[in-house]
Parts: sequence; structure tokens; C-alpha cells
Amino acid sequence: MSEKKRTTIVLFSGDYDKAMAAYIIANGAAAYDHEVTIFHTFWGLNALRKDEKLMIKKGFLEKMFGKMMPKGADKMGLSKMNFAGFGPKMIKNVIKKHNAMTLPQLIEMAEEQDIKLVACTMTMDLLGLIQEELLDNIEYAGVAAYLGDAEDGNVNLFI
Amino acid sequence: MSEKKRTTIVLFSGDYDKAMAAYIIANGAAAYDHEVTIFHTFWGLNALRKDEKLMIKKGFLEKMFGKMMPKGADKMGLSKMNFAGFGPKMIKNVIKKHNAMTLPQLIEMAEEQDIKLVACTMTMDLLGLIQEELLDNIEYAGVAAYLGDAEDGNVNLFI
Amino acid sequence: MSEKKRTTIVLFSGDYDKAMAAYIIANGAAAYDHEVTIFHTFWGLNALRKDEKLMIKKGFLEKMFGKMMPKGADKMGLSKMNFAGFGPKMIKNVIKKHNAMTLPQLIEMAEEQDIKLVACTMTMDLLGLIQEELLDNIEYAGVAAYLGDAEDGNVNLFI
Repeated sequence: MSEKKRTTIVLFSGDYDKAMAAYIIANGAAAYDHEVTIFHTFWGLNALRKDEKLMIKKGFLEKMFGKMMPKGADKMGLSKMNFAGFGPKMIKNVIKKHNAMTLPQLIEMAEEQDIKLVACTMTMDLLGLIQEELLDNIEYAGVAAYLGDAEDGNVNLFI
Repeated sequence: MSEKKRTTIVLFSGDYDKAMAAYIIANGAAAYDHEVTIFHTFWGLNALRKDEKLMIKKGFLEKMFGKMMPKGADKMGLSKMNFAGFGPKMIKNVIKKHNAMTLPQLIEMAEEQDIKLVACTMTMDLLGLIQEELLDNIEYAGVAAYLGDAEDGNVNLFI
Repeated sequence: MSEKKRTTIVLFSGDYDKAMAAYIIANGAAAYDHEVTIFHTFWGLNALRKDEKLMIKKGFLEKMFGKMMPKGADKMGLSKMNFAGFGPKMIKNVIKKHNAMTLPQLIEMAEEQDIKLVACTMTMDLLGLIQEELLDNIEYAGVAAYLGDAEDGNVNLFI
């Protein structure tokens, strides 16, 4: 009976820097042999969006949300000093300069480390997002599944 | 000696969407038989304000805060894409369309499920809020009581 | 074998009010005999900056970040109702009126209570911050050290 440690993160935020923090902690925890889940809800779902144009029939409100929200990790803004997109460019330059990882690279690493990436079905509904728009190989679940993971571990974060 | 699981949430944020997330997780945890506390502090206190005009004598600063902060859950803005109040309307339309619950309904459900709703007395003082302005049947406590609840459970979130 | 309780906080935010909340919880937990760590990352590092002009040679991007970010706890803005710096003034007036503690005082108290204040070296690099700019007597570490502290305790918050 090996009792594995667990890290479970709710990624609520759609900010590039906050998502970076979430994925850095998650990748670190996976490297230290934790079982790790990132549960993406509300604006955090945008980190899982594919950067493609899809022809999908949607209602008006859903179409509006779809248009206004960033299409994938690379398009997200900063929580501070966004300056209409100038901030993210600065951060990305600095990341390149320091040989650090960008958010899309951090997400790829998470997939390689078998971190469980979950999309919250209830908020997908609310924001009019469908499975075709999101990354392949992720899971779909609700708050009950989140709690099932969270209650078994100590490191629970809401980001 | 039944060891009940515990979920304790600090609701710091005064954003409609973040408060929704807090109450959805809290209601889910209560349904799965956790003991649940939501500790409202700073702007999160606004979720507990009554939607009424009260004649209360306050100092100038307290009056200013009182005027500038939203009066209750239904008046809160979004953390993203608020668009001067247009965003919350969109969210509420979408909630109605999907038969999901609004924030005031989620709070009502929390009360029915005996979730402990606590208002942080220290920040009430700072923001000039008094008990008459907040929902009935909530509790009043400080950081010591919060820690007492939090240290006994695994699921601790700051929202 | 005394099993000490543990509170570990990631301070990601550079907002005055959020940092206040972090330090109030941390000081409370230390008073109740928890071992407490605050891990400062991204904009949370600004709470540790000294309020001094230093002649430091930096690259262009690092200089930009250094200029745009607040120099220390006393210069940080609010997460809500900042009103170009008017909000923080209101909060500070209200703190004085209620004999509550300002953020710099809360940080001092944390140092006196032996709360472990850690600066995240990876994000210091990204934002171009160096040790000379930050408070003395703090520790420097990465995500591995954070996880080492976090996984041993129940109260884990991301602020």
C-alpha cells in the first residue's frame, strides 16, 4: 500500500502568468512523484483551447464568449501589467532569454508527465465550449470528480 | 469517532464568477458529506450584503466604501470581461438558459445544506460593514476560528 | 515526536489587500504554533522589495520590469477599487483609524515570529530582480523547496 502524495489544482484564472504558476507547481509535483490533477474551470478552460478556427454552430451568447476569450494558452493576457498585450510579449521575451519554458511548453510537459488535465463540464456548458475546441487526451468531469481527487491529498490550490 | 472530511474556503474576492466557483465547490463538498466553512473576508463580504437601503450612521470613509462596493451577490461584477456590467448580464443569461444556479441561489442552497457562512470581523471593521447589513444566520469570527476549521481538513482554498 | 502543524502560502499576487490577507493568516497561524512559510513568486516578490534606489546594472527588459513594478509593500495597489492609488490611501487611513496593522508592519511581525519568507529564484530571474533589492534575512528557493514544505501540512493557500 504505497500512499502516493497528491497535488490538485483548480485553474480558474485565464491569465498567462497565473496559468504558468499552476503548471510550474504541477510539473514540479509530478517530478516529485505526486499524483497531480489540474481541474480547469471558467476562464482557465482557455488554456486548453486549440489554436484553430473551427466551424461550429453555436447560439449567440456562446459565439460571443467564444470570440472574446483567448484561443489557447499562447493568447492569454497577464494578470498585471498586461498593457494591451505588450506585457505578455515582454514575459515571453524574458522567458526565451532565460531559457525558461513558455506556457504551451509547460502544458506539453504536463501531458508527458501524465498529469491529469480535466475540463469542468459545467462551465464548458456555461461558456459554450465544446470538446472539439479543446486539446485531445484531456478528461471531462464535474465538481464531484474534483473533490474525489482533492480530498485525498494535502496540496490543494485554487489559482 | 467518525472522522468527517472538511472543506474550508476563504472567499476574499468580490467577483461574481469567483464567488460562484466558491459556492459550487462548497455545495458539492456538502453534498459529499464534508463539513464546509466559507470564511468571507475583504471584498468577499459583499456576497453577504443584503440588497436593502439601511439608515446607518457611519464615518466618511466607511460611507465611501459602503457606496462603492456592490450590495449583495446579485450586484457583483466579473473578474474578467466585466465590460461595465455587461459581462455579468451575459453570464446570468447563460445561467438561465442552461438551468444552472445564480449566485444568490447558490448561497441559499449553501444555507439549506448547513454550510457555515462566516464573516471576518476584522475586515468588516476595516470596510465599515456592520451586522445589520449582512445576511441573517451567519457567524462572525476572526482568523483564529478560520484556522481552527482549516487545520482539520485537507481541502483548503483561497478564492 | 511532536507533529507540528504547517501553513504554507504561495504569495503570487502583488496587490496590497491580497498580501495583507496572506500575512494576516500567516501571522495568525504562527501565533497558533504552526510552522509557516510564505513563498513569494511573480508579483508577490514586490512585497519583499526594499524601498531604496540601488545602482544596479540590468538589461533593458529587466530595467523595464524593475521600473514598472512597485518598490516594496508600501507601494502596492489594491486588487479592487484601486482608483489610481486612491484606494490604497483609503485603506491605509482606515487601518490607522482602527489601529490595525499596515502591510509593512505585518511583514515585520512575520519576521519576528520566525515565519519563513522565501523568494522564488526562478521568477526573480524572469523579472530581473536580484538579492540586493530584496529584504535581508529571507530565503531563496525554488518549487521543490516549496513542495517540501507544502506536502507536510494541511493549510496550503495560493494567494
